[in-house]
Amino acid sequence: MDQTEIARRIALGRNFTKCAMDGDDGFVSDQQQRLPQPPLVKAAMRERALRLPHDFDNLALAGDYARLVGARRTRRVYTGEAISLLQLSFLLWASQGVESVRGKSYATLRTVPSGGARHAFETYLVVNSVEGLAPGAYHYLPMTHALEFLNPVDNREETVSEMLMGQSWAAKASVVFIFSFVPYRAEWRYGIYAHRVVMIDLGHVGQALYMAAEAMELGTCGIGAFSQAACDRAFSLDGQEEYAVYAQPVGRYADADAPKELEFYAFLKERE
Amino acid sequence: MDQTEIARRIALGRNFTKCAMDGDDGFVSDQQQRLPQPPLVKAAMRERALRLPHDFDNLALAGDYARLVGARRTRRVYTGEAISLLQLSFLLWASQGVESVRGKSYATLRTVPSGGARHAFETYLVVNSVEGLAPGAYHYLPMTHALEFLNPVDNREETVSEMLMGQSWAAKASVVFIFSFVPYRAEWRYGIYAHRVVMIDLGHVGQALYMAAEAMELGTCGIGAFSQAACDRAFSLDGQEEYAVYAQPVGRYADADAPKELEFYAFLKERE
Repeated sequence: MDQTEIARRIALGRNFTKCAMDGDDGFVSDQQQRLPQPPLVKAAMRERALRLPHDFDNLALAGDYARLVGARRTRRVYTGEAISLLQLSFLLWASQGVESVRGKSYATLRTVPSGGARHAFETYLVVNSVEGLAPGAYHYLPMTHALEFLNPVDNREETVSEMLMGQSWAAKASVVFIFSFVPYRAEWRYGIYAHRVVMIDLGHVGQALYMAAEAMELGTCGIGAFSQAACDRAFSLDGQEEYAVYAQPVGRYADADAPKELEFYAFLKERE
Repeated sequence: MDQTEIARRIALGRNFTKCAMDGDDGFVSDQQQRLPQPPLVKAAMRERALRLPHDFDNLALAGDYARLVGARRTRRVYTGEAISLLQLSFLLWASQGVESVRGKSYATLRTVPSGGARHAFETYLVVNSVEGLAPGAYHYLPMTHALEFLNPVDNREETVSEMLMGQSWAAKASVVFIFSFVPYRAEWRYGIYAHRVVMIDLGHVGQALYMAAEAMELGTCGIGAFSQAACDRAFSLDGQEEYAVYAQPVGRYADADAPKELEFYAFLKERE
């Protein structure tokens, strides 16, 4: 790639990160034109779903938020042990749970904030080892706080590694979260300005998942570099009206594995 | 704006939200070319700075993370009362605090996660009412967990309202956080792929600030729609190598004001 093309793309990228809603550009959103609103969530994909437990008082989370802030780390080395269904339930609840609906069906109010309460994401899982769940691919139904089983996922270890562009350490996670984006859900309100806001919202979700994991002494790592094609294929997303945008493996960690975590930064020793 | 232009921009926006790191495009980053690394943080802008208190055990935060998840709301109605310096310190620490430096000076490790630990943001404040601080504009020095006073900000109420495109309710916040982005800090490592990752990182920061506020029973509201020009001007950012990307007012709230919060959604009554 030549320098001119790089400079052009950097300028485009920077432009994207700026707030362009400043002037009067004559843009009229579909919401302003009173076009029909898209569904608040994706419809169930299967006939049956498993209601998740919701008794989070039983999680016995230790310490206050200041302790949690000090404890949070990115963790890539997992023991491979199973997490409980209640733990998985809390991870889903804390990152995408629906607390109520505003208006007749104008917006979902969730545990995380979202620009204009558009909440334009869906949550998918590759489950490796969660007590009470068969391994495989799942879709979260936030309106009923339930999970639907999609398929068993052949060669799960290889598939996850391919989805995450060879980051094979993720295969030892108890569960891999894949968040997808349904663009029109945000574009209906924000149109050409939707995409910047949505990426910030996505970070809200990722951070919420980090903290929920850490509160249960589970580890996670946000992954922004994944195979778009492989992640979309895994959940039959069309890549246009819905596509994967963020991945987070979650698993148990052991303090004894701290030296293994440091091996991910071995390149620094060679460098300095 | 005509339909062709809208469709073109929507396609560009969607493209931006996808992970394009999939193929072999021949892009070589400045880091791979061993070009010099930019500074980890912006240099101090003033000669003097105020070290912030760090004794967060004294905050007496109530409840565990599950309670916090249930309590979090977006809050736009503030009482106007002052917050303490320790509370402000915790807001800064939990959203951008530096815990250590990796390698000789390769990366800061902070309380929030960031792709490749680039942490490409700076934190600015407009202080209205914080015990022990003169009102005005400040810049956070994360390496020393200190604040430097920039200037008093004339007509603070009007200025904040202009910065936030007329969202005048924010003027009653005790403090308004403005996060800026220093693009080359991320581009050095990720080049043309930096900007997508950075916007997710920005959401990590925003959510961290939401939860830190809620842990102290303070209210906040993430603002993605602000005046780029007015925010940049307020802190003398050049708009190229550094510019504002997110705003969050924080203030005390009162449960008695809950009906006023609902007035922000009065348009729903007319609609349904």
